[in-house]
Amino acid sequence: MLVNRRKVEIEWGDCDAAGIVFYPRYFAMFDASTAYLFEQALGMKKIAWTKKYHIVGIPMVDTGAKFIIPSRYGDGIVIESRASAIRRSSFDIEHRVLKGDQLAIEARETRVWAEQHPDDPQRIRGAEIPAEVVAALSGEG
Amino acid sequence: MLVNRRKVEIEWGDCDAAGIVFYPRYFAMFDASTAYLFEQALGMKKIAWTKKYHIVGIPMVDTGAKFIIPSRYGDGIVIESRASAIRRSSFDIEHRVLKGDQLAIEARETRVWAEQHPDDPQRIRGAEIPAEVVAALSGEG
Amino acid sequence: MLVNRRKVEIEWGDCDAAGIVFYPRYFAMFDASTAYLFEQALGMKKIAWTKKYHIVGIPMVDTGAKFIIPSRYGDGIVIESRASAIRRSSFDIEHRVLKGDQLAIEARETRVWAEQHPDDPQRIRGAEIPAEVVAALSGEG
Amino acid sequence: MLVNRRKVEIEWGDCDAAGIVFYPRYFAMFDASTAYLFEQALGMKKIAWTKKYHIVGIPMVDTGAKFIIPSRYGDGIVIESRASAIRRSSFDIEHRVLKGDQLAIEARETRVWAEQHPDDPQRIRGAEIPAEVVAALSGEG
Repeated sequence: MLVNRRKVEIEWGDCDAAGIVFYPRYFAMFDASTAYLFEQALGMKKIAWTKKYHIVGIPMVDTGAKFIIPSRYGDGIVIESRASAIRRSSFDIEHRVLKGDQLAIEARETRVWAEQHPDDPQRIRGAEIPAEVVAALSGEG
Repeated sequence: MLVNRRKVEIEWGDCDAAGIVFYPRYFAMFDASTAYLFEQALGMKKIAWTKKYHIVGIPMVDTGAKFIIPSRYGDGIVIESRASAIRRSSFDIEHRVLKGDQLAIEARETRVWAEQHPDDPQRIRGAEIPAEVVAALSGEG
Repeated sequence: MLVNRRKVEIEWGDCDAAGIVFYPRYFAMFDASTAYLFEQALGMKKIAWTKKYHIVGIPMVDTGAKFIIPSRYGDGIVIESRASAIRRSSFDIEHRVLKGDQLAIEARETRVWAEQHPDDPQRIRGAEIPAEVVAALSGEG
Repeated sequence: MLVNRRKVEIEWGDCDAAGIVFYPRYFAMFDASTAYLFEQALGMKKIAWTKKYHIVGIPMVDTGAKFIIPSRYGDGIVIESRASAIRRSSFDIEHRVLKGDQLAIEARETRVWAEQHPDDPQRIRGAEIPAEVVAALSGEG
C-alpha cells in the first residue's frame, strides 16, 4: 500500500491545560493526513478529486485511537497513513504517529466513498470506489 | 437594539497550556452568539433564516477583541450581543463578555449579508438586508 | 451507574464544508461530557476535583466512536455518558449521542487517573482511584 | 524588523459549511505564526524561550483582523508576521496573509510579556522585555 508520511509540529494551540495535545486535535490531524494520502495517490487536491469523481466527500463511519506517548508544543511528530482495506464503497485507513523512532499513537478509521443521494440532496449514500482510485491507494497507480 | 444574553461554561478543551482560554475559541463563541442573536430576532435557527432569505451566510469582514480578564476552565461567562449598526448590506455586532459583574472582553465585528453571485456560484456578494430583519434586530420585530 | 445527560446544540463552527459536524468536534464534546459526569458525581467542577485528589487530570489512553447518523448546524443532540468499568487507576466511559429517539453515535474511552510522577514533574503516572470517586460514579455516592 | 514567512495549506477541517475558512481558525494560525516569529528571532522554540526568560507566555490583550479575500480547503496561503512596536512589557505584531500576490487578510495583535505574579501563582503580570529579545525581533539579533 502507498504510505503518506508528513511531519507535524505541535503548536501551543493544540495543547490543553496539562500542556499536552488535546486529543481531539489529533483527529483533525488524521483527517488532514487521509486527505494528503489521497492527494499523493491521485495527484490532485481533495477539492479536485471529490469534483472529478462526483462525490461529496469521504465521511467517517468508525474511528479509534490508542494514545501511547503524549506530545507537547514544540514537539515534532511524523504521521504515517495508509489504506489497510478497500471495499466496494468503504475503506479503512491506518495512521501511525511516530516521535523519533517510537510509536506514539495508533489510529484507524473507516470511511465511506459518498455521493449525494439522487432522490434527496440532503442525504448521502455510498458509491463504488473507482478501480483507478483503488489502484492508486494500493501504490499501483 | 435587541440583546442576546447567553451563559457559556469554559471547558478544559477551550484552554491552552497556560490554563486560560485559547483566544481563538472566543471568536468561535462570538460566531455562535451572533447566530443566536439572529435566532432570537427572527424566531428561527440560522439554517432556516439563511434559506428563507436566500443567502449563503453572514461572512466576517472585520473583527476585533480586547481581552481584559482571562477565564479558566470551569469559569462561567455571560456573552451579551447586539447589532450596533445596520447598513444596506452589512452590519456591526458588539459582544460583551461578563464575569460576574466585571467586563472581561469587548469585541466587535462587521459582517456582510451575502448571497451567491448570480454569475459565479463560487463567489458571493452583498445583498440588501430585508427591512423585517433590520426591524427584528432593532427590537421592533 | 450514574448517567450524565446533556443537550448540545450543533453550531455553524462545528461543521465542515459538507455541512455536517466535523467529527473531531464530537471528541471535544465527549471530553466535556466526561468532565460533566465527574462534576455531577463529585458535586464540584473538574478544576476543584483535580485539586482535591491531587491529580493532573484524566488523560485519554484509548478512544473510539461509531458514527451512525450525521448532524447539521441547528440540530440538537443529547449526549448520555456513564462509567462502564472502573479499575485500580483507569476507567472506561461510554457516550451515546441521541437525535430524538435515534442513536446517532456510540463512543467509548479509556482514561487514566493520573498524578505527577514524584521523580519527574514532566511525567505522569496512574494513581489509585479513591473509593469515594468509584462510589460516586457508580451512583452510590 | 525581522519577518517570519510561512506557507499554510488550508485543510478541510479549517472550513465551515460555506466551504471557506472558519475565521477563528485564522487566529489559531496567527498565534502559531507569532510563536514561529519568536522562534526565528531567538533560535529556539517557544517552550524553550518561555523557560529561558522565566515567563508564562505572551497572552493576547487586543487583536483584530480584516478579511479581504476568502480561502477554501486546498488553497495555499503565506502568512508574513513581524513586530510593529515593542514597548517595555508589551508589543504589537502584524500579520499579512497573501494568496499569490494579493493581500487576503490584515491582522494585528498586542500581547504582554507575562510572568507569574510573585504574590499569587494564579495571576500574571507584565515583565520587562529583555533587550536581547527586542534586538532579535528588530532583526539586529
